[in-house]
Amino acid sequence: MGATLGELAVRFGCELRGDPDVRIETVGTLQGAGPGALAFFVNPRLRDALSRTRAAAVVLSAESATACPVPVLVAAEPHATFARIATLLHPPRPAAAGVHASAVVSPAARIAASASIGPLVVVEEGARVGERAQVGPGCVIGPGAVVGDDVVLVARVTLCQGVSVGARSILHPGVVIGADGFGFAPERRTWVKVPQVGGVRVGEDVEIGANTTVDRGAIEDTVIAEGVKIDNQVQVGHNVRIGAHTAIAGCVGIAGSATIGARCQLAGQVGVAGHLSICDDVVLTARALVVGDITEPGVYASAVPVEKFADWRRILARLKRLDILARKVEALARGGRGRDDEDDA
Amino acid sequence: MGATLGELAVRFGCELRGDPDVRIETVGTLQGAGPGALAFFVNPRLRDALSRTRAAAVVLSAESATACPVPVLVAAEPHATFARIATLLHPPRPAAAGVHASAVVSPAARIAASASIGPLVVVEEGARVGERAQVGPGCVIGPGAVVGDDVVLVARVTLCQGVSVGARSILHPGVVIGADGFGFAPERRTWVKVPQVGGVRVGEDVEIGANTTVDRGAIEDTVIAEGVKIDNQVQVGHNVRIGAHTAIAGCVGIAGSATIGARCQLAGQVGVAGHLSICDDVVLTARALVVGDITEPGVYASAVPVEKFADWRRILARLKRLDILARKVEALARGGRGRDDEDDA
Amino acid sequence: MGATLGELAVRFGCELRGDPDVRIETVGTLQGAGPGALAFFVNPRLRDALSRTRAAAVVLSAESATACPVPVLVAAEPHATFARIATLLHPPRPAAAGVHASAVVSPAARIAASASIGPLVVVEEGARVGERAQVGPGCVIGPGAVVGDDVVLVARVTLCQGVSVGARSILHPGVVIGADGFGFAPERRTWVKVPQVGGVRVGEDVEIGANTTVDRGAIEDTVIAEGVKIDNQVQVGHNVRIGAHTAIAGCVGIAGSATIGARCQLAGQVGVAGHLSICDDVVLTARALVVGDITEPGVYASAVPVEKFADWRRILARLKRLDILARKVEALARGGRGRDDEDDA
Repeated sequence: MGATLGELAVRFGCELRGDPDVRIETVGTLQGAGPGALAFFVNPRLRDALSRTRAAAVVLSAESATACPVPVLVAAEPHATFARIATLLHPPRPAAAGVHASAVVSPAARIAASASIGPLVVVEEGARVGERAQVGPGCVIGPGAVVGDDVVLVARVTLCQGVSVGARSILHPGVVIGADGFGFAPERRTWVKVPQVGGVRVGEDVEIGANTTVDRGAIEDTVIAEGVKIDNQVQVGHNVRIGAHTAIAGCVGIAGSATIGARCQLAGQVGVAGHLSICDDVVLTARALVVGDITEPGVYASAVPVEKFADWRRILARLKRLDILARKVEALARGGRGRDDEDDA
Repeated sequence: MGATLGELAVRFGCELRGDPDVRIETVGTLQGAGPGALAFFVNPRLRDALSRTRAAAVVLSAESATACPVPVLVAAEPHATFARIATLLHPPRPAAAGVHASAVVSPAARIAASASIGPLVVVEEGARVGERAQVGPGCVIGPGAVVGDDVVLVARVTLCQGVSVGARSILHPGVVIGADGFGFAPERRTWVKVPQVGGVRVGEDVEIGANTTVDRGAIEDTVIAEGVKIDNQVQVGHNVRIGAHTAIAGCVGIAGSATIGARCQLAGQVGVAGHLSICDDVVLTARALVVGDITEPGVYASAVPVEKFADWRRILARLKRLDILARKVEALARGGRGRDDEDDA
Repeated sequence: MGATLGELAVRFGCELRGDPDVRIETVGTLQGAGPGALAFFVNPRLRDALSRTRAAAVVLSAESATACPVPVLVAAEPHATFARIATLLHPPRPAAAGVHASAVVSPAARIAASASIGPLVVVEEGARVGERAQVGPGCVIGPGAVVGDDVVLVARVTLCQGVSVGARSILHPGVVIGADGFGFAPERRTWVKVPQVGGVRVGEDVEIGANTTVDRGAIEDTVIAEGVKIDNQVQVGHNVRIGAHTAIAGCVGIAGSATIGARCQLAGQVGVAGHLSICDDVVLTARALVVGDITEPGVYASAVPVEKFADWRRILARLKRLDILARKVEALARGGRGRDDEDDA
């Protein structure tokens, strides 16, 4: 699967500075790569590592080329070019077409001849699996669910009744698409279940991380647009809509009926309340909490990083008395003395 | 499965205002429903949508009836009545009684004749499955576990050894009930595993969302009372006790030995520390953190919603110096000048 | 499986105060234990329960012995000693060696003769399973994955291609080890997948809770050192390194390339940002958020516990105006009046 630098330069449209016959077999980090391994450089904090690298070659931008002691492939977007070369060098494992003998496939399901259905998979009636799709061990494809062409369900993925997954999407182990949304109506201090009759539509080129859950809609569908990337252990509530190419990191929770725009980035542990709207091109930093509409693109934050425990305890005590402090300052500004007895009225 | 408005009014005890012969086949939103579809109205923010709805009919309260341009079913609790009608119109898929040929069922398990055991299910020795229970594809029912009458385990649910699930409860894909609690004793700077010999008792009419986990007790049982509703990706630690009809939204974490009362509501991403007690009828808003007992019913909060990043950074810098600011104010109140050198003593 | 107090004292090196012929059959809490049951005492808040206990005997430290009305086993680390006795009294269920008829095992996998492969397990080509390892129902062991001696995969665990799990480790249901890390390179406002070619190495004596996920490395491996204990629903990103004997409670999220030292303790819902380093012996309290290096051992915190909703709303409003308040105080300290119009310049 290896290639020469000359071949890579031609195939991926890079400028090569160095010997075109150098052979690349694998990828590595700037620090760890040795002969035969290709690294990349985009993070300025690694400039020192770049200057000492023993990689066979490095993918980087034009302005960094002279800082590199080994051959370089110059690319406009070095990380993306590196990713494409890495895919060439480390292609996904091919899966043999056909249905494993241990799979339980309904005669009323339609499986493309080029699809691969792994061991101990269940495909229920009315489900459809597209060309070259790979359904790994232990997956469950519910009644009427649709798996697009070239989709990969790695292992133990559950698609509930009627959900659809667009072409080329990748779903990792433990993903559950289309479980009932959390819908209950109050009645005499108990809860009545509201049937969840909507579905889930996952677009093309979506990736969904391990143990992430996307609930089916209450009435209409939950929608994940094309190109969305979702990390592990993310919870997406019913009737959420996520716009194209938005990226969502691990442990994010998105409550029901939230609408998130295109090209947003949600960092880890972000929370989004229900029934609100976030416009396109919003960045939410780690653990940001959104409880109202965001109508202007930009970066938003609300998290508090750690302090030493004793310091934080002091700050916290002050925070809990902040209203009193502010009233004291107001009294001082009015010319008073801001004594406690003024404030506790 | 359809019904006329007249039939629905009689069956669900509603007052009908409009043509009793209008036929209802499905449900819809106020905005999306067309001929044959029933909507409901409870959220005042949707009053405009109500006035323009093209639904065949709307379930609502008496005071909203005149604002509706189409036939109405007047109900005391419109959302609950809607939920019951929706269940009539969209009944759950029936599951055929019997054990699928691919299931692996211990001869020492007891399966009711009316129960449905799906493909690739494992039922271990001593387990019992009740009348009309539905055990979906890929579930694992451990040794001695008990599945009550009419329980639905949707798919890929794991019940560990000896846990019990009460009648009519619904567990969604990926749920794990009865894994070992997180119990380790320190010994010479390493950890010794504490055997988790308690069980888990899940009451009747409980619903548990996808990929939620409920750990078994260390010595005594973890207990989820009747009517509790738990959303996706919630973690319930060992020896937690949750009171009847409490509702818990997604991504909540409840540490070991916490006791939560009846009829509480925990919003998304709430955290509850261990070994504490929350009384009945407590509401915790999104991402609230509880680290001590709550003894008074009411609404509690601690979350900070987002600001623009630059604004938040400024606020955060001030927060981290809040103790100094407060001491400065105290000095001013004493008649001093509140200079920094006074505070840094 | 029972034993006399005399036997336990000898076997576990405890000083016995009381009748050596008292027979112990099980374990219990101080409050719940009756005849035949052994309890332990370490938490000073339970001193009252100790004084009233009806347990057959109690494991405790020398200084507490006189406060106990029943026979005692005196131990230097009472909880650890109790844990070891509990393991003797309640041994893990033995699993019969051999491969269940319903398992799908590649002929190119190597399974030790003493290992137990449960029903509906998949073991792919090149995988290896060690002596006495127990692979429970529904597990998937990917190509080339390595399961060490005496490992327990309880049920429905997924080990992806090439990952390794050290001897005696225990992985609970729903765990996913080695799913692709969240690696995407930006390209013309969309994302290109970066192949994740590293692996995961889980050390010896590790325990990993239900539905926890540990991603494979992008280029090099993700590493969990020996003796690490991880609770449920924890997310560990690609290329994270966790030092020996560190304990991580439920719902923690650790972003990619974070390095965490040895003997750390992370409480529930903690967040750790990527590309940073935490030294040995750091304690992070519930929901602490780490966004930069920690270089000094100690306890760190950043969480805000709940207030009544109305109180919190007032505090929050002040917090959002904290920058303005601080400028007002500065103006007052300079001798001004701190009026709003001074601050809004």
